Amino acid sequence: MNGADALISTLVANEVTACFANPGTSEMQFVAALDGKPEMRPVLCLFEGVATGAADGYGRIADKPACTLLHLGPGYGNGVANLHNARRAYTPIVNVVGDHATYHRQYDAPLNSDIATLVKPNSLWVRSADSADAVAGLAAEAVAASYGPPGGPVSLILPADSAWLPASTEPVIAQKPTRPAPSSQAVDAAAKAIKAAKKPVVLLGGQACRADALAVAARLEAAGVTVYSDTFVPRQARGAGVFLPKKMQYFGEMALAELEGVDLMVFVGTAMPVAFFAYPDRPSVLVPEGCGTLTLAERSEDPVAGLAALADALGAPASGPSQPLALPEAPTGALNAYFAGASIARHMPENAIVCDDAVTSGTGVATGTATARPHEVLALTGGAIGIGLPLAVGAAVAAPDRKVISLNGDGAAMYTVQALWTMVRENLDITVVVFANHTYRILNVEMTRTGAGKAGPSAAKLLDLGDPKIDWVSMARGFGLSAVRCETAEAFDAAFAAAMTQKGPTFIEAAI
Amino acid sequence: MNGADALISTLVANEVTACFANPGTSEMQFVAALDGKPEMRPVLCLFEGVATGAADGYGRIADKPACTLLHLGPGYGNGVANLHNARRAYTPIVNVVGDHATYHRQYDAPLNSDIATLVKPNSLWVRSADSADAVAGLAAEAVAASYGPPGGPVSLILPADSAWLPASTEPVIAQKPTRPAPSSQAVDAAAKAIKAAKKPVVLLGGQACRADALAVAARLEAAGVTVYSDTFVPRQARGAGVFLPKKMQYFGEMALAELEGVDLMVFVGTAMPVAFFAYPDRPSVLVPEGCGTLTLAERSEDPVAGLAALADALGAPASGPSQPLALPEAPTGALNAYFAGASIARHMPENAIVCDDAVTSGTGVATGTATARPHEVLALTGGAIGIGLPLAVGAAVAAPDRKVISLNGDGAAMYTVQALWTMVRENLDITVVVFANHTYRILNVEMTRTGAGKAGPSAAKLLDLGDPKIDWVSMARGFGLSAVRCETAEAFDAAFAAAMTQKGPTFIEAAI
Repeated sequence: MNGADALISTLVANEVTACFANPGTSEMQFVAALDGKPEMRPVLCLFEGVATGAADGYGRIADKPACTLLHLGPGYGNGVANLHNARRAYTPIVNVVGDHATYHRQYDAPLNSDIATLVKPNSLWVRSADSADAVAGLAAEAVAASYGPPGGPVSLILPADSAWLPASTEPVIAQKPTRPAPSSQAVDAAAKAIKAAKKPVVLLGGQACRADALAVAARLEAAGVTVYSDTFVPRQARGAGVFLPKKMQYFGEMALAELEGVDLMVFVGTAMPVAFFAYPDRPSVLVPEGCGTLTLAERSEDPVAGLAALADALGAPASGPSQPLALPEAPTGALNAYFAGASIARHMPENAIVCDDAVTSGTGVATGTATARPHEVLALTGGAIGIGLPLAVGAAVAAPDRKVISLNGDGAAMYTVQALWTMVRENLDITVVVFANHTYRILNVEMTRTGAGKAGPSAAKLLDLGDPKIDWVSMARGFGLSAVRCETAEAFDAAFAAAMTQKGPTFIEAAI
Repeated sequence: MNGADALISTLVANEVTACFANPGTSEMQFVAALDGKPEMRPVLCLFEGVATGAADGYGRIADKPACTLLHLGPGYGNGVANLHNARRAYTPIVNVVGDHATYHRQYDAPLNSDIATLVKPNSLWVRSADSADAVAGLAAEAVAASYGPPGGPVSLILPADSAWLPASTEPVIAQKPTRPAPSSQAVDAAAKAIKAAKKPVVLLGGQACRADALAVAARLEAAGVTVYSDTFVPRQARGAGVFLPKKMQYFGEMALAELEGVDLMVFVGTAMPVAFFAYPDRPSVLVPEGCGTLTLAERSEDPVAGLAALADALGAPASGPSQPLALPEAPTGALNAYFAGASIARHMPENAIVCDDAVTSGTGVATGTATARPHEVLALTGGAIGIGLPLAVGAAVAAPDRKVISLNGDGAAMYTVQALWTMVRENLDITVVVFANHTYRILNVEMTRTGAGKAGPSAAKLLDLGDPKIDWVSMARGFGLSAVRCETAEAFDAAFAAAMTQKGPTFIEAAI
């Protein structure tokens, strides 16, 4: 047994059984060790941003970490953007970052870099396993650290010699941390404040948007408290039978207009809402002036226990509102995001997982699916576009029996387009939709909002994707996917319906 | 004038006139300010790894920095791998990394991250311009710092309010540092050591592989000193009329075998050669036992002056050997990298720029082009694959009158495939060749060398790209390129010849 064997044994012993990888020479021992542990599923990604985004999708659905296998600093670097998103989603991920052999580092070979510094901004925990015997213990620490709570990516640096040298260690089992219930003081304070408030609001985020927590939050709504969710939620239950809180508006001034008169905001599994970006003369904090704030449950705490205790303290009814099942009529005419949403709602099976990186088209789809069959939505939590395809890869690996739907803006899909290949390689049950408007639509809006004015010729060149227009069908077929372009609502409805009746990956370009 | 205007004015005043960009909301003021300075050419890249790799290619050819425009931490993160390569190439690059408004940072909005830490491993210089009036001065500092010598990427963090607030500053002109000649002591010491040595070697790297330095190095070869170059050189003159030093072998044991008996290594524009990776029981340092080493010219010094002084001190002839012009015969039969190299040599015009990210196929091509028309080769300096397409984008922007040839392994090309779009958008004169062997060929070799043994089923899944096989022609056409697949030497020869006679981007899949 060498260090690589010890690592994989410990990961598997801690239920880490999926590895999203793009290895290089320094990771060959890890790769070889996989053959000895078939419990670990290796999934090759042709770019590390796919691997880290897939690990995020896997972690959100499996509620346990996957590992990634990344090639030194540059390999990790390619994964940074989606690890940023994962950090913002509080998703447990164990990054295994290969490094030069310990004795080789001093020579500063071409691939050498300061990995420990590079990983810091997006790692809850960082250690380098500088001997083979240290590997198993540190791997167990890494898994435990990734759970938090509230959890997130961790980085275990694995020098090549720590992987290839003999290791005598047995697998080490990590203690899996639990989420404590909020204190009774926090519950009492929230109940008291809500009773005293004229227009109280509860804001849910993170774990408080899972199905179990939403069912309890609905009791608060029934008791007269308006319930909101964060704008971007890592994993939210939605659709028929599920309570749908209002969503915090993306643009700050709209959020504040909607919250006018609110005199109390209580946070559950989230914190003070802030504007996604700053704009000249617009507010940063999305809490109305004079409104009180308090936290019922920290992100690290159990929101279900907190919400139930609060509902009891308020004497709330035993249950609250939930969405009806109401499937839209078949849309007709030129395709747009709302029509696409209607078709998705019509045909999406129960328990589907929707990965949303559709930026400006996301709202249209969400409107349609509000009363669809029950499903879950994984959102872009950190604002780094290019997660919709990788998230779907990870979700599909975690839940092979659920249909996964990946919604993407064309600008976003291009970031990690390599994910399409892994979908085919692994025969994942994913329907990809790319909304092709051939522009960074959101930036056309933001250009005005930031006071930057109207785009002249140089500026316009940086917002537009239409010259040349990407042929998404040709691209997707290049990766081995069956693919179709839809320009009408009728065509999209038919293509999406067909995709729902078959297993395996398929691709729809929604020309909007 | 606002901070963004001040920034672009100062960049342009310092001859920074190309901006490889993928902006977001926090960069909209910079984008708007471009309209006021048409001297700055904005080039949209659909992924930041393309932008940073293009800035590297631009800097290597233009010998001045381009700027990049990147969206906060994740945007920079996507560019890390190619900035690693640029750092190893000592290429001047000014990264402009947008950030939240200074007052907004404290709220830790979703896109917030520790940019200053993230950029550190790959930045010679880092500053955040925390007021609009600071922007111009820091931009000038950034440009100066990027030149080094020996130069490299720098990072100027630009908070959104520093871009949008009024700035009263005039453009600031940076002092461009010069490369000093090596000291006469260093020259004397090298001359003395070489005279005393039985089998002396001079090793060239970096600036010492440019045409002017090679011409002088040839004098040393003529004087009986064997001249080598580093394995991976940022920009090397090659072909007819150019002196071709031996290349340090990639695999350490082969390098040492070749250097057997060498009792002196003198470094010019480079440092002690080390193995690219460590392997069990193989050496890290590629200097024979007992061999003396000394440095004639540091990377920061002028290699031409150093080489000339050394040649004079040795009484070397006034000129040395150079390659003849000898174009291969037209190859026939099943295509391989050597045949492709022969065709490239046959048809490549004088002064072409070859961007080499072809990993295992690169050697075959280099064999063919050794006696081709004079050209320059830009190599993968940092080992982070995915630079061949972006490098070509930057080189073509820097030198619109030169034919650019981009050589890529299929695994490598997939990393930053989005670059194909920018080639079409900007109508760049680039011929892309992707060597499609549908595997990470090098890793199949490395697997054995690291002692990891033969790949079993799990391991094999992480090395192979053949299931599904990527249809590169379909992919390239999706980006708007004309594209062709060649399976025979005859077909490749014809396709490559045709590409050389036309202007604009074209794509050849070399099925090997």
